[in-house]
Amino acid sequence: MKLNENFAALGGSYLFGKIAARVRQFAAENPDADVVSLGIGDVTRPLTPAVVCAMHAAVAEMAYEETFRGYGPERGYDFLRRRIAEYYAGRGVSVSPSEIFVGDGAKSDIGNFLDLFGKSRVLMPDPVYPAYFDVNVMSGNKVAFAGGNRRNGFRPLPPSRGDYDIIYICSPNNPTGAVYTKDELKRWVDYARATGAVIFFDAAYECYVRDASLPRSIFEVEGARQCAVEFCSLSKTAGFTGLRCGYTVVPEELAGGRIAEMWERRQATKFNGVSYVVQRAAEAVFTPQGLAENAKNNDYYLRNARAMHGMLESAGVWHTGGENSPYIWMQCPRGITSWEYFDLLLERANVVGTPGAGFGKNGEGYFRLTAFGNDEKTVRAMERLCEVTRAAMRK
Amino acid sequence: MKLNENFAALGGSYLFGKIAARVRQFAAENPDADVVSLGIGDVTRPLTPAVVCAMHAAVAEMAYEETFRGYGPERGYDFLRRRIAEYYAGRGVSVSPSEIFVGDGAKSDIGNFLDLFGKSRVLMPDPVYPAYFDVNVMSGNKVAFAGGNRRNGFRPLPPSRGDYDIIYICSPNNPTGAVYTKDELKRWVDYARATGAVIFFDAAYECYVRDASLPRSIFEVEGARQCAVEFCSLSKTAGFTGLRCGYTVVPEELAGGRIAEMWERRQATKFNGVSYVVQRAAEAVFTPQGLAENAKNNDYYLRNARAMHGMLESAGVWHTGGENSPYIWMQCPRGITSWEYFDLLLERANVVGTPGAGFGKNGEGYFRLTAFGNDEKTVRAMERLCEVTRAAMRK
Repeated sequence: MKLNENFAALGGSYLFGKIAARVRQFAAENPDADVVSLGIGDVTRPLTPAVVCAMHAAVAEMAYEETFRGYGPERGYDFLRRRIAEYYAGRGVSVSPSEIFVGDGAKSDIGNFLDLFGKSRVLMPDPVYPAYFDVNVMSGNKVAFAGGNRRNGFRPLPPSRGDYDIIYICSPNNPTGAVYTKDELKRWVDYARATGAVIFFDAAYECYVRDASLPRSIFEVEGARQCAVEFCSLSKTAGFTGLRCGYTVVPEELAGGRIAEMWERRQATKFNGVSYVVQRAAEAVFTPQGLAENAKNNDYYLRNARAMHGMLESAGVWHTGGENSPYIWMQCPRGITSWEYFDLLLERANVVGTPGAGFGKNGEGYFRLTAFGNDEKTVRAMERLCEVTRAAMRK
Repeated sequence: MKLNENFAALGGSYLFGKIAARVRQFAAENPDADVVSLGIGDVTRPLTPAVVCAMHAAVAEMAYEETFRGYGPERGYDFLRRRIAEYYAGRGVSVSPSEIFVGDGAKSDIGNFLDLFGKSRVLMPDPVYPAYFDVNVMSGNKVAFAGGNRRNGFRPLPPSRGDYDIIYICSPNNPTGAVYTKDELKRWVDYARATGAVIFFDAAYECYVRDASLPRSIFEVEGARQCAVEFCSLSKTAGFTGLRCGYTVVPEELAGGRIAEMWERRQATKFNGVSYVVQRAAEAVFTPQGLAENAKNNDYYLRNARAMHGMLESAGVWHTGGENSPYIWMQCPRGITSWEYFDLLLERANVVGTPGAGFGKNGEGYFRLTAFGNDEKTVRAMERLCEVTRAAMRK
């Protein structure tokens, strides 16, 4: 057998595994510490009544010969794809159900979508969600970075030189919480069209955008249908991290329809559709009741984010995100690395966050906080974090 | 963007799509015909009480903050992996839970497993499940075939010359229903070890093996842990075609542990685990109640298969399968192609099957029938099939 040698070029243990190990050790040594995690991007609010009822009904259907469902369509049931198209239409974005592919989550689709391309030159932001980078290493692609920094507000714009085959954009961004304006996205779309690149647009956090002037889909930008694919997920929209459902929009115009056709064939050959019960749950998310219930859950996280944002503001800590995003990307006190800051916070404030260095070179000196926790615990943890940080900043 | 040019080498429309289109047309032109499908490999019995109860309970857990589950382990929950290991142990096969990876179905895992390998020389049976071939075309691999035929009972043995990187084996086989003996599998294992190949063993139909002397897992064969990966699925074991859950066993011995490590990394990077609710359903399958209930459903299909086998035997039609398998692979009447036989059956007997030519060159002249339908309809359809076939054989 011939192993895929690209795997040897992958970095060591995965970021969150490393963090979990350090936290486990600290907790074992300090059993009475009130350790609060602001580290992981996982939701904590339960599924809403509309979703739960829909799932019970779907499970009951599977119990009787008359209503049992076997293999479903690989690209997802019509009932769900129509609802997703309506969800786009509600924001004034025209997407046909035939352009929507239901999958088991944005992470799977973003990774597997590379199957459709040959060896590619790839441009992605730095800092960046580690999986974007790792899937390209596995494929042997050549990766360059568009550097985010304090000057550009971690919203890097297209480079003035060089062209690429594939461009990754995530807005609202993980890890920085930064949200591109429509004009900024337009610059990326124009650049992609001028250079013949395809944009992989990760819209997993679109549900947190409350400022109506900010785009929630790249298809709000003129020309995007000619150059972009959009990946979205119910993980954050409706707390589906444990249920697993997402969707990918492949416009008909992209490469003259070739990409949609290839993705359809890829999914029909290497995937067998999302669980019927989960698709019924997803359908319920997009009903008026489901949308209202889930907006309440997302408001809960956004209140956390806004509180965190306000407290960092008061403490004089530079940061992005916290508005229109569940993520906050803060600058570490001068002179310490993001892993040193991680240790400081864990030991002195009993707060767990994510060192920016884990997201790339440009992440060094920064730190990611998430707003997915319990509200009271979050505020308590942030008070301790601000105190420790202010003290470190004074040094 | 650079498209993956291997896609251009894929064959046209997918076999089952073509069949469905012909059946739709016939049904539209003959609205009163009693068309019975013995064509598709999808189950029809509903989920059993143990599974349904477990799912309702899991859905209820997701409704409360205290019991809600977000992201699960990418390789599956311990509670399920332990049950699967016990399921193997019950047949005398020792597999550690740490060697088991839960996925959303054998089709996904068999396709995605190629990510771990570089360009490979691949050997697979002919006739063959079309997805095996297509995923290798997508990867640009070079495929050779081990020819099944009437002489070897559609159980081809290792070639005397040539070596390969990857070998596909499916037993009980789709489409032929043929089941390898332990001695025959041992020859494949010895060949793989001698040539350094890895065997992809598809055990999706293991639950239909009732003859205790026939192997249900390749790991019943000495030396297999050094050269084989086993893909299995609950689609047939427990009617999960619409729920989506399978598992892949990667032994620690394989390539000194490298393959297990690479698969773990691949899944952690491009997959986010199976729905919690579905994993609880799968856990219930392996309880004593779940096993007993599902054995009853599988007995139902096996009774169909045995009835079909007996009727073909009486009609003097050569075939494999129908015992220890839900598939029957029958010879078409002399002088007509498998697509001609398809048309003949559809028009004269109103029975839908699958032309052998759809499974490869060696499938020409043969025809696949499945035992997953309603028992009364199946017998009725087989009576008409035997009559039409006998008439065609006399010509």
